[in-house]
Amino acid sequence: MPRSHGADIDGLIQLLSRLPGLGPRSAKRAALQMLKKKDSVMVPLARAMADVAERVVTCGTCGNIDTHDPCHVCADARRDRATICVVEDVADLWALDRSESFRGLYHVLGGTLSALDGVGPEDLNIAGLLARVDVGGVSEVILALNATVDGQTTSHYLAERLKASGVKVTALAHGVPVGGELDYLDDGTLAAALRARGSVG
Amino acid sequence: MPRSHGADIDGLIQLLSRLPGLGPRSAKRAALQMLKKKDSVMVPLARAMADVAERVVTCGTCGNIDTHDPCHVCADARRDRATICVVEDVADLWALDRSESFRGLYHVLGGTLSALDGVGPEDLNIAGLLARVDVGGVSEVILALNATVDGQTTSHYLAERLKASGVKVTALAHGVPVGGELDYLDDGTLAAALRARGSVG
Repeated sequence: MPRSHGADIDGLIQLLSRLPGLGPRSAKRAALQMLKKKDSVMVPLARAMADVAERVVTCGTCGNIDTHDPCHVCADARRDRATICVVEDVADLWALDRSESFRGLYHVLGGTLSALDGVGPEDLNIAGLLARVDVGGVSEVILALNATVDGQTTSHYLAERLKASGVKVTALAHGVPVGGELDYLDDGTLAAALRARGSVG
Repeated sequence: MPRSHGADIDGLIQLLSRLPGLGPRSAKRAALQMLKKKDSVMVPLARAMADVAERVVTCGTCGNIDTHDPCHVCADARRDRATICVVEDVADLWALDRSESFRGLYHVLGGTLSALDGVGPEDLNIAGLLARVDVGGVSEVILALNATVDGQTTSHYLAERLKASGVKVTALAHGVPVGGELDYLDDGTLAAALRARGSVG
């Protein structure tokens, strides 16, 4: 094996390449960039990571990842506490919140039901959701699960479980993505967009 | 601004997005992955970074970045000390060494001559190269600079400066990249490959 750098730098590259979006080559580039900008990138990043790692917690209410419990979303007094948006993963929570189109609270399931992977209702944070609804004050639960088979199965299951509580249960609309070209869309999306068509003008 | 996570996590994402290959979105994904795999990714990575940052040095001989001076290349007794390969950047050194096709020593210039950017010979590590050749024991200097205008200008300049020492000066061959399709190659490369054609069989 060629050794153009030491075992320490090799170890650093190996660890970096475990991050999503970085392969072995880009991890090498990232490592080199860090080594060159030691004081402006490497040292602050190492410090931020060690600092955050020490204080990271999962929000006991919604399942968001944050350095505080309750998390920034649950603690935000300006948010609408009557609406809970159910997502599969923290990444979905962050994506929805980035869009600034929802000002209610979230609930992270931690996955979807999956017969294939042996994921049952008890493996997801469904009890926590039902408990939050049972406490009262919630008027609507928005199911924002992925439009996959497992996601939709989970949506149906949740809608069934929430029926008893009498809360309004809605789901994200299917349709043409903004900026999307019809020619490149699958038949299912086109059919859904046609079914859900609205009047114009 | 939406606050789905705290200022600490935001700061971490900002720092991550400064790495090459990571935009704001992939930095977010990387941060989330780290937060989820705190003990297997985040903590070891933070430790490796802090550790390497503390000990990183530039090799006084060749300009490589390493945790030792002389670096692993210069310290490797099995390497051919009669051949020096001149590269623009440490990234090029690592790339050449990864190919395992060169077993000599390197010399990092730290850039190329550039009238536009005001980079003159005194801004590059040219004096160091001449000194290494003057010490003796070097039979060949391979110029492995990028095939850009600035890279080639620098190559010519170096060849001129090295003439007095009597050392053999060579440069990387131009030609068709292995696996490359002629149809997608530029005219300059095709012309160079034709000029440098070799007999077969």
